[in-house]
Amino acid sequence: MDAENWQERLKIAYWLVGFVDGEGTFSVSIFKNNTTKTGWQVFPEFVVTQGERSLNTLTLIKNFFKVGNIYINRRHDNHRENLYRYCVRALSELNDVIIPFFDEFSLKSDKASDFEKFKNCVRLIKSKSHLTVNGLKEIRSIAKTMNTGRIKNSLESSEAIRRVSN
Amino acid sequence: MDAENWQERLKIAYWLVGFVDGEGTFSVSIFKNNTTKTGWQVFPEFVVTQGERSLNTLTLIKNFFKVGNIYINRRHDNHRENLYRYCVRALSELNDVIIPFFDEFSLKSDKASDFEKFKNCVRLIKSKSHLTVNGLKEIRSIAKTMNTGRIKNSLESSEAIRRVSN
Repeated sequence: MDAENWQERLKIAYWLVGFVDGEGTFSVSIFKNNTTKTGWQVFPEFVVTQGERSLNTLTLIKNFFKVGNIYINRRHDNHRENLYRYCVRALSELNDVIIPFFDEFSLKSDKASDFEKFKNCVRLIKSKSHLTVNGLKEIRSIAKTMNTGRIKNSLESSEAIRRVSN
Repeated sequence: MDAENWQERLKIAYWLVGFVDGEGTFSVSIFKNNTTKTGWQVFPEFVVTQGERSLNTLTLIKNFFKVGNIYINRRHDNHRENLYRYCVRALSELNDVIIPFFDEFSLKSDKASDFEKFKNCVRLIKSKSHLTVNGLKEIRSIAKTMNTGRIKNSLESSEAIRRVSN
């Protein structure tokens, strides 16, 4: 990469941190799943949600990280625009791309602490601790302290609803 | 400013654009006010709203711009954290600091178009067009196309309520 491209990439990196400080979510969900050994499935996810009019920002993020996908979340409730979610779910992508990025470019809002907890959970999952009852308990106790206390916006709420209905 | 401080300021600038792409609002409100010549008062405002836990981000923005103020908006509704609003309202500060900044560091989300409309309104107000009926009509027609269509989050909604109740 030449110096000019590198400068451009740095600018996007700092912009991206600001945008994620505002609009990003690091979450760890735990679902009942009887096909797993513990009866539970652990689901870490990095998400940025936007309305249709700012879909370009998600494309920019996806092109920057070169991992993850953008999903549409159609809304038919009150004529508001459709939602789009940029999601990174694969453990390897979280571990090799997303976590090293936010380790290098620090979040400035209270999401920095959610990121640290997220990182701990991903580390536990990577070491397969989530397949043991104790490891699962540890992940659950970290996960329930994440994304709490913060004022929820309608994006996060709709996300929670989607999760429940899936 | 030495090179190192300049680099640091640039990093904050790019972060700030990302954060405002997510959390900022450029708005122009028009209130009835019988003490003005037209019977209306035009109120342009640049706002970034955060919960208490991310108050530090607003302080960072205030220190960066060196204009504007942070106001507390106490919440007693459902035990959620208090809101804080970083606001720039003075015409000279909008014109000399906020607008030149976002002219140089472009927003990437659909807020870029709200910013352009905001800039037009501030220009009209600066040339005192808002004191004439035609100028006021023009500002009103621009203002009503701003911040529409976008998915409102609870921060923006509570802001709207505050406006109405003021």
